[in-house]
Amino acid sequence: MKVLVINGPNLNMLGVRNPKVYGTATYAELVDYIERKAKDLCIDVRVIQSNSEGDLVTAIQQAYKVYDGIVLNAAAYTHTSVAILDALEAVSIPTVEVHLSDIARREEFRHHSFVSLYAFKTIKGFGFEGYAMALEELIKHNNL
Amino acid sequence: MKVLVINGPNLNMLGVRNPKVYGTATYAELVDYIERKAKDLCIDVRVIQSNSEGDLVTAIQQAYKVYDGIVLNAAAYTHTSVAILDALEAVSIPTVEVHLSDIARREEFRHHSFVSLYAFKTIKGFGFEGYAMALEELIKHNNL
Amino acid sequence: MKVLVINGPNLNMLGVRNPKVYGTATYAELVDYIERKAKDLCIDVRVIQSNSEGDLVTAIQQAYKVYDGIVLNAAAYTHTSVAILDALEAVSIPTVEVHLSDIARREEFRHHSFVSLYAFKTIKGFGFEGYAMALEELIKHNNL
Amino acid sequence: MKVLVINGPNLNMLGVRNPKVYGTATYAELVDYIERKAKDLCIDVRVIQSNSEGDLVTAIQQAYKVYDGIVLNAAAYTHTSVAILDALEAVSIPTVEVHLSDIARREEFRHHSFVSLYAFKTIKGFGFEGYAMALEELIKHNNL
Amino acid sequence: MKVLVINGPNLNMLGVRNPKVYGTATYAELVDYIERKAKDLCIDVRVIQSNSEGDLVTAIQQAYKVYDGIVLNAAAYTHTSVAILDALEAVSIPTVEVHLSDIARREEFRHHSFVSLYAFKTIKGFGFEGYAMALEELIKHNNL
Amino acid sequence: MKVLVINGPNLNMLGVRNPKVYGTATYAELVDYIERKAKDLCIDVRVIQSNSEGDLVTAIQQAYKVYDGIVLNAAAYTHTSVAILDALEAVSIPTVEVHLSDIARREEFRHHSFVSLYAFKTIKGFGFEGYAMALEELIKHNNL
Amino acid sequence: MKVLVINGPNLNMLGVRNPKVYGTATYAELVDYIERKAKDLCIDVRVIQSNSEGDLVTAIQQAYKVYDGIVLNAAAYTHTSVAILDALEAVSIPTVEVHLSDIARREEFRHHSFVSLYAFKTIKGFGFEGYAMALEELIKHNNL
Amino acid sequence: MKVLVINGPNLNMLGVRNPKVYGTATYAELVDYIERKAKDLCIDVRVIQSNSEGDLVTAIQQAYKVYDGIVLNAAAYTHTSVAILDALEAVSIPTVEVHLSDIARREEFRHHSFVSLYAFKTIKGFGFEGYAMALEELIKHNNL
Amino acid sequence: MKVLVINGPNLNMLGVRNPKVYGTATYAELVDYIERKAKDLCIDVRVIQSNSEGDLVTAIQQAYKVYDGIVLNAAAYTHTSVAILDALEAVSIPTVEVHLSDIARREEFRHHSFVSLYAFKTIKGFGFEGYAMALEELIKHNNL
Amino acid sequence: MKVLVINGPNLNMLGVRNPKVYGTATYAELVDYIERKAKDLCIDVRVIQSNSEGDLVTAIQQAYKVYDGIVLNAAAYTHTSVAILDALEAVSIPTVEVHLSDIARREEFRHHSFVSLYAFKTIKGFGFEGYAMALEELIKHNNL
Amino acid sequence: MKVLVINGPNLNMLGVRNPKVYGTATYAELVDYIERKAKDLCIDVRVIQSNSEGDLVTAIQQAYKVYDGIVLNAAAYTHTSVAILDALEAVSIPTVEVHLSDIARREEFRHHSFVSLYAFKTIKGFGFEGYAMALEELIKHNNL
Amino acid sequence: MKVLVINGPNLNMLGVRNPKVYGTATYAELVDYIERKAKDLCIDVRVIQSNSEGDLVTAIQQAYKVYDGIVLNAAAYTHTSVAILDALEAVSIPTVEVHLSDIARREEFRHHSFVSLYAFKTIKGFGFEGYAMALEELIKHNNL
Repeated sequence: MKVLVINGPNLNMLGVRNPKVYGTATYAELVDYIERKAKDLCIDVRVIQSNSEGDLVTAIQQAYKVYDGIVLNAAAYTHTSVAILDALEAVSIPTVEVHLSDIARREEFRHHSFVSLYAFKTIKGFGFEGYAMALEELIKHNNL
Repeated sequence: MKVLVINGPNLNMLGVRNPKVYGTATYAELVDYIERKAKDLCIDVRVIQSNSEGDLVTAIQQAYKVYDGIVLNAAAYTHTSVAILDALEAVSIPTVEVHLSDIARREEFRHHSFVSLYAFKTIKGFGFEGYAMALEELIKHNNL
Repeated sequence: MKVLVINGPNLNMLGVRNPKVYGTATYAELVDYIERKAKDLCIDVRVIQSNSEGDLVTAIQQAYKVYDGIVLNAAAYTHTSVAILDALEAVSIPTVEVHLSDIARREEFRHHSFVSLYAFKTIKGFGFEGYAMALEELIKHNNL
Repeated sequence: MKVLVINGPNLNMLGVRNPKVYGTATYAELVDYIERKAKDLCIDVRVIQSNSEGDLVTAIQQAYKVYDGIVLNAAAYTHTSVAILDALEAVSIPTVEVHLSDIARREEFRHHSFVSLYAFKTIKGFGFEGYAMALEELIKHNNL
Repeated sequence: MKVLVINGPNLNMLGVRNPKVYGTATYAELVDYIERKAKDLCIDVRVIQSNSEGDLVTAIQQAYKVYDGIVLNAAAYTHTSVAILDALEAVSIPTVEVHLSDIARREEFRHHSFVSLYAFKTIKGFGFEGYAMALEELIKHNNL
Repeated sequence: MKVLVINGPNLNMLGVRNPKVYGTATYAELVDYIERKAKDLCIDVRVIQSNSEGDLVTAIQQAYKVYDGIVLNAAAYTHTSVAILDALEAVSIPTVEVHLSDIARREEFRHHSFVSLYAFKTIKGFGFEGYAMALEELIKHNNL
Repeated sequence: MKVLVINGPNLNMLGVRNPKVYGTATYAELVDYIERKAKDLCIDVRVIQSNSEGDLVTAIQQAYKVYDGIVLNAAAYTHTSVAILDALEAVSIPTVEVHLSDIARREEFRHHSFVSLYAFKTIKGFGFEGYAMALEELIKHNNL
Repeated sequence: MKVLVINGPNLNMLGVRNPKVYGTATYAELVDYIERKAKDLCIDVRVIQSNSEGDLVTAIQQAYKVYDGIVLNAAAYTHTSVAILDALEAVSIPTVEVHLSDIARREEFRHHSFVSLYAFKTIKGFGFEGYAMALEELIKHNNL
Repeated sequence: MKVLVINGPNLNMLGVRNPKVYGTATYAELVDYIERKAKDLCIDVRVIQSNSEGDLVTAIQQAYKVYDGIVLNAAAYTHTSVAILDALEAVSIPTVEVHLSDIARREEFRHHSFVSLYAFKTIKGFGFEGYAMALEELIKHNNL
Repeated sequence: MKVLVINGPNLNMLGVRNPKVYGTATYAELVDYIERKAKDLCIDVRVIQSNSEGDLVTAIQQAYKVYDGIVLNAAAYTHTSVAILDALEAVSIPTVEVHLSDIARREEFRHHSFVSLYAFKTIKGFGFEGYAMALEELIKHNNL
Repeated sequence: MKVLVINGPNLNMLGVRNPKVYGTATYAELVDYIERKAKDLCIDVRVIQSNSEGDLVTAIQQAYKVYDGIVLNAAAYTHTSVAILDALEAVSIPTVEVHLSDIARREEFRHHSFVSLYAFKTIKGFGFEGYAMALEELIKHNNL
Repeated sequence: MKVLVINGPNLNMLGVRNPKVYGTATYAELVDYIERKAKDLCIDVRVIQSNSEGDLVTAIQQAYKVYDGIVLNAAAYTHTSVAILDALEAVSIPTVEVHLSDIARREEFRHHSFVSLYAFKTIKGFGFEGYAMALEELIKHNNL
């Protein structure tokens, strides 16, 4: 099983930004964590990050017929990007939405998610573990 | 007469995405269709596509003093991009807005169009033909 | 003191766009003005511009531990970009928000500013002078 | 193929009312235009007009089992008549909605259309041509 | 006791329109049903129907000093006609409002009833029986 | 000077309806009053009444190039008829809106007036006198 | 056929509370009325009442596989209880909702009904008779 | 004079919950306080408490013809219970509403009170003293 | 560590209600699952269920000084009960909120949660596993 | 009959302010006009003006038992002053509200009138004549 | 302890205005009552009244360093005056808000209070006694 | 050039009120600052302050034909006074609005400004310097 993990804007700043909310672990540690967990689950994973909405759209498009699942933490674009939603619908790859913190407990403008209109599952508030849980959900979904 | 046709995010996925809504014709076929129609109308046309909001803004800016008209299908950015609207106002080139499907019959968040605040005409729900109709509208507008 | 001045989409079109609202001075003249004023104030300044939301996010991230202050005119992205707000919070550099015109007197959708949720000061409606005022505010803020 | 073209209140005043919005052509010229276009398309057409909501309802009812398609420009009743919508649903004849101008660019109270809740296609802002386009849409729809 | 039963637009299409909602019985059968029930109740009944709002207003006015009760199914005009409400208030004849289906379970715009602002009783969702129930209510009301 | 006085639905019931609100004078007395006042002012007046929205639209249309002014009490259609507004705009005859009672003091749904969007003057709450005042306003307006 | 009639809070106070709205008949008389009507219709009925939301939920649960139909007047809990709605959905027994008065004519907060989201029929404003009508509806429903 | 004092959910936790808002005095001390004050005022008082909405409804019903006044602190049910309001209206016993803190200064969802729609007086923000004030108000009301 | 697991109304119907949403496993199986997981985690657990809001309030109150954590699936009362929220605040025991399905994807009235205003973590959409995850969260929270 | 005419803020600037809206006649001419009309109607009139809300309140209070009627043009305070409304209710003197222009045709914030909540008649849009009409209304009212 | 009691517009009309709401006692009697109560409580009190918002602001300002507490019944200005709120914040003197009637039971526009944003306690609906209660609250507050 | 600087309610309390927001400088120091800056700019300035809305209206009226510009800090009346707006429109003197703090960052009710509907420029958040900036803006405006 091949899975693409896509991280959106500012996730590369992990460990710098708001340690109170996101902890002190860095983005490199997150990538490392995901790769180890994927290995345990016999998943062939690739982890990418970009600050650009257009690049995220293109990454999703290029997953078409290449990947069996997507784990998507679109960060800020979660709330504003119709283009990412359209890309997900275009490629129709099973997708799990992940957020490190529980966005329903933050500012009002972080409550709506365009990604949720496509993703079959949303996991929020479990930090790094949320990625591992997402990979497991993709396996379950794959076995249906 | 020189016209720039600009297609926004995910239009390059035509034929892949939602055949029920957009049909099975591919993006290459759309470009071909537009170029043939333009030739029939003696229009010197260039067709571009990008998934990036910033690239669309730059493309509009670079049309300044080069093109006599713009046909713009901004896709998802239609609903979210103030930057594209500002670019259109900055270059002041006559513009027709095109959508393949009738966005007024889709989700609520696709009803508002920033592009409409500038375009002198909006054509939606006519599929590929909408682009030919848009080219004809630019000719009429040019002859006023 | 080192300051990064970041200009958002379409500001490179100054002198072309809407002379009634923004005057006839060009973007090159704006950069020149800012550099002269910075010199007078003994500030080491760098002025950049981009039409891409992702590039603006990246520029802010790269300012981390390099610049002591940011002057940000995010233009259209002021009203739509959660990603830029997140970038500002990630790097925690003192920031002044600038707008050439008084956006509160323009269309409804230009009234909300995500940038204001981070910036310690907002200056609008003073044209080029607003940038000089912003530099002075950063010095004052630095001396507290 | 037999088609009934129904025009609502005040369309008989064409050429008198608001030349800026509707042009100087008269209602007789519109009827003439529709009849010529229908002939070209081998459609057996009948064009009627009434200022009375009740008469329009009755006309739709009497089209039952007589006409294969309806082109309806309900004018002002577009926005206020539930009775016309009910009549369309009662007879279940394929219907295209036409408006001379783009009502979405006029007053707020002209934005909602009860007719659109039934019609399979809406054409607005193309002046007289809109009627020809509507006839073509009915042919396409008939051939499905 | 003399009662006028008034049926509004499209009720003459019963049996044609939406059999799922209204059943297959025709309007002639409805009139027959009402006349039989009235006879059983010793009521002198007259049943009329019109598609025109103005005719319904006139019918109500002409009931003045002629009829002791009105049963009114204003159909689509229920939701849009202030003129019918004014006519009812002008003649002050006891009135029962009838609807074949339960309009509160249909589209939003069918939820408000101007007729209910005058009628002393509203019966909906009982099909043909609703008319018989309405006649009984008028008798009870008459005996108070 | 020729003036058409148009009365809408239920005004023919004056003297019957709600004496508390409208007084006991009948519609015949109203017509008589208007004709006498018009004579005093040397106005050639015609007074008509209809319960039908379509007839009111037609009456306005037929006033075109025949009458110099219109006095319009559209009664219930004041609040619901876009068609009457369109007719007024089509013929462009100076019009004064009249209401016997002050509709702003009655139910919420009587507060909005489509007629007011065209009429150059609205007179309400002065009973029969309102018609005389309207005739005087038309004379003044004519002399400008 | 076995039917459970469930009455909610304060219905045991019938004859005490608001005689103007509910009449002077007591709750014992209501139970008696329902039992007589059920007998006439050959229905095996049981009538219960409780002031407690939890007890009503439990009563509905215990009807599972015991009763063929439910007549439910949830009184005040109609408007506030999601738990009762969930219980009805859990047991999936055909249910008719009954109210003595027409709650749509009372205070705003009595207009919404959670029970209606499940019940296949709602009867209101017919006093005691509403229960008999509900029993008849259950028989009809049973015979489909 | 006989008065029933009814305390709603969680008031039995006084002294445990939120000492900052409610102080450290316990529920037993509250009961004691009320009984002493009632004695001073020659009122025969009974104080009860329950966490169950249904029990509160029943308690109010059983006060019928037994008590001359009710002091009601419905706590959380103040904001959600239509059933308690209906019970109060059913028994029609003069009632004073009491709250220890000023609920208008707490969360939005504590601002609306169904109890206030019946109670002739509301006292809030006076802690234990509010109960004594309520008893005095009942005496005054009784003497009118 | 001692934990009280509280299940709200209708959870005892698991396996009966809506198998599409909740699966076919019964409530007894859920209790069994929780007890096994607790044993694995060396947690001393007690699982209770009630359909009554008042009983749930009382159960929370009685947990005071007895349990170290609460796992609460308040089901329907999640959305309507201020009393349960007040009980949680009164006893101040660390609490995790659990829902079998993702309530944010169901009806509008299930989106708001009073329990979330107190719980330090919310887990939804993981079925039975959500309870195990909740127990783990309580252990982590305890170790801070 | 004694009448007090009260003019609010900025009416003393008549002839200076917005001649397009209010004409070129001065405040002195308005006072003169009112005094002449009052004389014709045998009314003993006093005309006062103030820019201060408090002074207007006091003027109304001092009219108590001195004047038989008030004509009030509260100008800007019409829309903001609860104190003037309270003063009118305190003295209970018959009052007519006057406005020179039709405030319903100006900015949104001029549409609400606190004065109208007390005045038995409102006259707007008749310029100076409105004051004469108001005096006549007071005489009629006095003769009832 | 020195306390300033400030009464707003129209309170000087007590005994004249709305006896049903405020009783027949006069303002002189209110002043007398307050002075007697203050004496009993050993408070050095001064009672003032004004109809002018500006005078009330000035009175509050002049209390600075002179009075230890303020009792403020701002009457109509309660709902409209930001200036009085600012004055209270400027002088920072402990303040109790008083209203004779319970304004929450009167018109909608009397529900909001700017004074409550500063006052530490609000007392309403106790008539004259409310002033005595306010003085006692100031003493308690002073002793903290 | 002659300029009138008008300060509204509570500005005379500068140095007393909220030092955190407004600093410790007194009103006398503000007047001094303005007079010195005016002198530097060769402006003949007069600075006045009042707590009364009516006095501010009168001051603006008396500036007519006496002053060439107005600097207005209406403080609390900024948000509530239509009368001040009317006065500004009446005299038509170029006006700059000043606020010491950035009111857009304070309470909701301070966000709307009636003064802004007239002023050609608004300066907020620059403390005392805002007045100097306002004087400079008036000079620039004068030189156009």
